[in-house]
Amino acid sequence: MTSYSAMHNKILDGQRVADAVLSSIKKEIESLRQRKPCLAVVLVGDDPASAIYVKRKTKACLETGFESIQKIFPATVSEEELTEYLLSLNASSNVDGILVQLPLPAHLNQRKITSLISPDKDVDGFHPVNLGKLVTEDSSGYVPCTPLGVKELLEASSVDLAGKHAVIVGRSTIVGKPLSLLLLQKQKGMNATVTCVHSYTHDLPLIVKQADLVVAAIGRAEFIRGEWIKEGAVVIDVGINRVEDASAKKGYRIVGDVEFEGALQRASLITKVPGGVGPMTIAMLLKNTYKSYKSKGIHV
Amino acid sequence: MTSYSAMHNKILDGQRVADAVLSSIKKEIESLRQRKPCLAVVLVGDDPASAIYVKRKTKACLETGFESIQKIFPATVSEEELTEYLLSLNASSNVDGILVQLPLPAHLNQRKITSLISPDKDVDGFHPVNLGKLVTEDSSGYVPCTPLGVKELLEASSVDLAGKHAVIVGRSTIVGKPLSLLLLQKQKGMNATVTCVHSYTHDLPLIVKQADLVVAAIGRAEFIRGEWIKEGAVVIDVGINRVEDASAKKGYRIVGDVEFEGALQRASLITKVPGGVGPMTIAMLLKNTYKSYKSKGIHV
Repeated sequence: MTSYSAMHNKILDGQRVADAVLSSIKKEIESLRQRKPCLAVVLVGDDPASAIYVKRKTKACLETGFESIQKIFPATVSEEELTEYLLSLNASSNVDGILVQLPLPAHLNQRKITSLISPDKDVDGFHPVNLGKLVTEDSSGYVPCTPLGVKELLEASSVDLAGKHAVIVGRSTIVGKPLSLLLLQKQKGMNATVTCVHSYTHDLPLIVKQADLVVAAIGRAEFIRGEWIKEGAVVIDVGINRVEDASAKKGYRIVGDVEFEGALQRASLITKVPGGVGPMTIAMLLKNTYKSYKSKGIHV
Repeated sequence: MTSYSAMHNKILDGQRVADAVLSSIKKEIESLRQRKPCLAVVLVGDDPASAIYVKRKTKACLETGFESIQKIFPATVSEEELTEYLLSLNASSNVDGILVQLPLPAHLNQRKITSLISPDKDVDGFHPVNLGKLVTEDSSGYVPCTPLGVKELLEASSVDLAGKHAVIVGRSTIVGKPLSLLLLQKQKGMNATVTCVHSYTHDLPLIVKQADLVVAAIGRAEFIRGEWIKEGAVVIDVGINRVEDASAKKGYRIVGDVEFEGALQRASLITKVPGGVGPMTIAMLLKNTYKSYKSKGIHV
């Protein structure tokens, strides 16, 4: 039986790493005599989960010393009105980063709206130009925040993936595919062998069992079983799922895509949910915004 | 011992499929009363291999009824002059596709030059916008020709990859990475589990042995051994390598990245080199050019 403290040492603490990233940016910003970096967050409709995410992002901006624009449109906003607003943000020399909180209401074409954001302000990294730069390993682009957060969390823990087998569970445009591209890159700490598995995959447990790194990003509560984890593997859980829990105050609790207790027994390093990848995602959003700010030739 | 005819039936004949693709396009073009599709090929310097590729592409254009522009610059051409020429091709309403034959001389920045080509004429599919559209599964983009050729060859042979394990050997921007993205797509025939392995990969044979589909694209003669191939797997060989052969007329012969005779014993389907992926790559270049032509609203 592993002791409590050994277990504790296994935790990849995303909150701590994210705090360190943000406090380092904050320190740099405090010494600025010019305008502060500015992130504009656009929310359409009143989805409660989206509202929470937007609030967290805005809060992180303010705490880090960024300017923040928060714009809320009703769910019925027309494509024209939203477009016009986004173009005005593109044109503003005081705005460094723009993000449209997803998902959008059904009448709006998510791909079209996302592509309106100028690539050099697309701090979410969802514009085709930025995703393409991830393929060509052009570091001038913006990498989507969750994959970038996973990378920085691994780096902060001195995990070197060179030649190791990374299994990414999920093939979304937001996490699975860009993370696959990132871990494949010819960069220090990366150079992983990458397998991307998903709902069609045959023998998924067999593949996960071979992984030196497992990243779970499918949005299915505790889908990855502890016994699938290879002894000593690193486990990153991107999932955030509500499960009913009568014993909890709110009637539910938040769990990841990995069965945590089981995986903890076998992993060498593992993230918790919450407190793992979530805070890293927000820190990377600010890091990308700060990168955009600096790229404008503002000397810091 | 498998009979000769059973062996013969295992061959994925890229030349035959490519010919069928081109003759179908040719038939459509013959009935056009308007200008023909036009591909501009730009060659810098006098690398003999590049010159052969350009010649093949131009020949395919003429045989299929396309217009073809071939422009050769000396190896010493300035970035400014090359840029100016590419911009003039972008602006020309008579040019549907533009490709710059790679590699470029060292003084030219390949990434910068490639990005100059207008994405809607980038029939090689190397512009970040087109690679990004491959990530987002936006079918308005152009998929690089070799990966697209692999996909069409599999389709022509009724190979359905859904849930199957595809192992791609090589992580280049031209083949490995875009092919990984393509085979992962939520499209009929695709939906593969994809592993991308490369020079850093530990236990490469062990991973290849699990593959239902092996695609070799590393440029190392007969690197993939026949005994690594799983019984019944499909094998696609993208490699084109010269090996010395005193018995051959020219003193060398062309082999792929796969040890063909050994792999043939175990594979259910396999490409030859030459006559496999090579002709498909050229056919897809013309297919992409024709797609660009049609997208301009020219009714065919």
